[in-house]
Amino acid sequence: MIKHDKVLLAHGSGGKLSQELIEKKLAGKFPNPILDRFDDSAAIDFKGRLAFTTDSYTVSPIFFPGGDIGKLAVCGTVNDITTGGAKPLYLSLALIIEEGFPFTELDRIIASIAKAAEEASVSIVTGDTKVVNQGSADKIFINTAGIGKIAEDTNISGCNAKEGDKIIISGSLGDHGIAIMAQREGLSFSTPIASDCAPLNSLVADILDVAKNVHVLRDPTRGGLATTLNEIAKQSAVGITIEENKLPIKEAVRAACELLGLDPLYVANEGKMIVILPPEEAEKALAAMKKNRYGTDSTIIGEVILGQAGRVTMKTLMGTNRIVDMLSGELLPRIC
Amino acid sequence: MIKHDKVLLAHGSGGKLSQELIEKKLAGKFPNPILDRFDDSAAIDFKGRLAFTTDSYTVSPIFFPGGDIGKLAVCGTVNDITTGGAKPLYLSLALIIEEGFPFTELDRIIASIAKAAEEASVSIVTGDTKVVNQGSADKIFINTAGIGKIAEDTNISGCNAKEGDKIIISGSLGDHGIAIMAQREGLSFSTPIASDCAPLNSLVADILDVAKNVHVLRDPTRGGLATTLNEIAKQSAVGITIEENKLPIKEAVRAACELLGLDPLYVANEGKMIVILPPEEAEKALAAMKKNRYGTDSTIIGEVILGQAGRVTMKTLMGTNRIVDMLSGELLPRIC
Repeated sequence: MIKHDKVLLAHGSGGKLSQELIEKKLAGKFPNPILDRFDDSAAIDFKGRLAFTTDSYTVSPIFFPGGDIGKLAVCGTVNDITTGGAKPLYLSLALIIEEGFPFTELDRIIASIAKAAEEASVSIVTGDTKVVNQGSADKIFINTAGIGKIAEDTNISGCNAKEGDKIIISGSLGDHGIAIMAQREGLSFSTPIASDCAPLNSLVADILDVAKNVHVLRDPTRGGLATTLNEIAKQSAVGITIEENKLPIKEAVRAACELLGLDPLYVANEGKMIVILPPEEAEKALAAMKKNRYGTDSTIIGEVILGQAGRVTMKTLMGTNRIVDMLSGELLPRIC
Repeated sequence: MIKHDKVLLAHGSGGKLSQELIEKKLAGKFPNPILDRFDDSAAIDFKGRLAFTTDSYTVSPIFFPGGDIGKLAVCGTVNDITTGGAKPLYLSLALIIEEGFPFTELDRIIASIAKAAEEASVSIVTGDTKVVNQGSADKIFINTAGIGKIAEDTNISGCNAKEGDKIIISGSLGDHGIAIMAQREGLSFSTPIASDCAPLNSLVADILDVAKNVHVLRDPTRGGLATTLNEIAKQSAVGITIEENKLPIKEAVRAACELLGLDPLYVANEGKMIVILPPEEAEKALAAMKKNRYGTDSTIIGEVILGQAGRVTMKTLMGTNRIVDMLSGELLPRIC
């Protein structure tokens, strides 16, 4: 058994302690026949169109209301795969651990990864662990890469938004960013704010079941809704308009944003999906989303317009139109 | 254009500077139609048996004789894919950059990644960039995950070593570890030692062209030849014996090891392959390897024996037999 209570440099040496760490603390927690071969690469049978993505997670603090860096590392990559209209299947898991990191915390993170992977029905099939000297990293960084299978007749891309398309958001904005910020700054609110961190593959499957012509799926993480809509408007060379009075924002998040001088449009989400699709499919997609536990507050917030390519505008509560630009500068470092 | 000479936190914000960084400094250097869509996940047509692997690279120093962290991040993952008998095709690239990291160094690393990917004939199809506060990481960490295609009739795994198999190593031992160590400690030797960091996919392809029954391929990285052979002996539940007088070790590496109190059997390699295959295929594989630029010093170093499962022994220069154990403790932190 592991006799140490902290991660040592030797746990990343490739030698005996590495093997012990991998067998007892990591791979042993995600048993599956592919991983259990302990080869340097996983062998998988695959046929069709594949979605491939990667993300590193450096969030600080590593534990926060609603999740932790482990849950985030699974959900974030699962969600990126679903944005290609794909069903997530396999994840890799690569850890960079600071020497001295407590095993109690590593165990919590690994348990959280296992739980999130189970919910999202993905298998962790290959991995890597590095340990760096104290001071060379901040506690733990996690990279997950993921593979999914894109359904036969799907063509979903940020490049595909078309004039007239409706824009749906799957729920309230800014929960993740504000939860992290509040934890980091030691703020407490009368209504506690939890991260929305969640795997959205079941939500996307429910959408694709009823709407066959979805043009764009995208999760508004770093940079928030505003930045993500700008990216889509640019990729698709279209205009986008949204209505301020349609944006779902929790009262506590709105208050926290006011206090912190933040605009919820730019605050990160980790369990929300933007869906852009033809108007004739919007209502049935919306109805399906509202039935999913991660889409109960789904709402149509705007549409794709001819307008100036790459420009996002918002009809404000005052009735004026304002340009919603991409995030400039840095709002909240290490949010994910 | 990028107006800053150092990486700022805002370059990891997901906003304008992130986009600028990605377009000007990263994706723009690896143009390919999959990456150029700028979606959150890459879409790839794939049919067959897939190899999937991941590795994070935290090597220090980031530039060293014979390579840098970028070249290493491509070659290391390419080589892990080939150990499954697969042809490497696609890589993901995820960067964790410390705030303040100079763009001149980032540019060098990215150029080195592009060059190594070109040599290995792999495309970088998806990526991610995070920036963490100064002091929260040491300069730059890189994760690459990779996808390869396993040929139809291949079954290569660390589990497949069989009694009587010959063991070939593709060249001299310990070059990478000693190059890093010398650079880190400011040592200089009369014969400079360069890392052997190289993509071994062409070497593996040459082997598989002439030898149809290769049982195991494995690159002896962290923990060196000794640790890797122990892993294989354990996975396959066989004994392994090697001969000390057959081990190819450069004179300069041998001298440096003596000076530093290291055993070259445990020092990391980044451009070497262990090949385990039936005796009747050994000579033709060896001949093919010697013709490849990365295998000129290939040699048969031992064989798989019935013996005690999981045990590696070495016939020493003195004619005695000694047990060669896995690495215990930490030899050289942050070697890869």
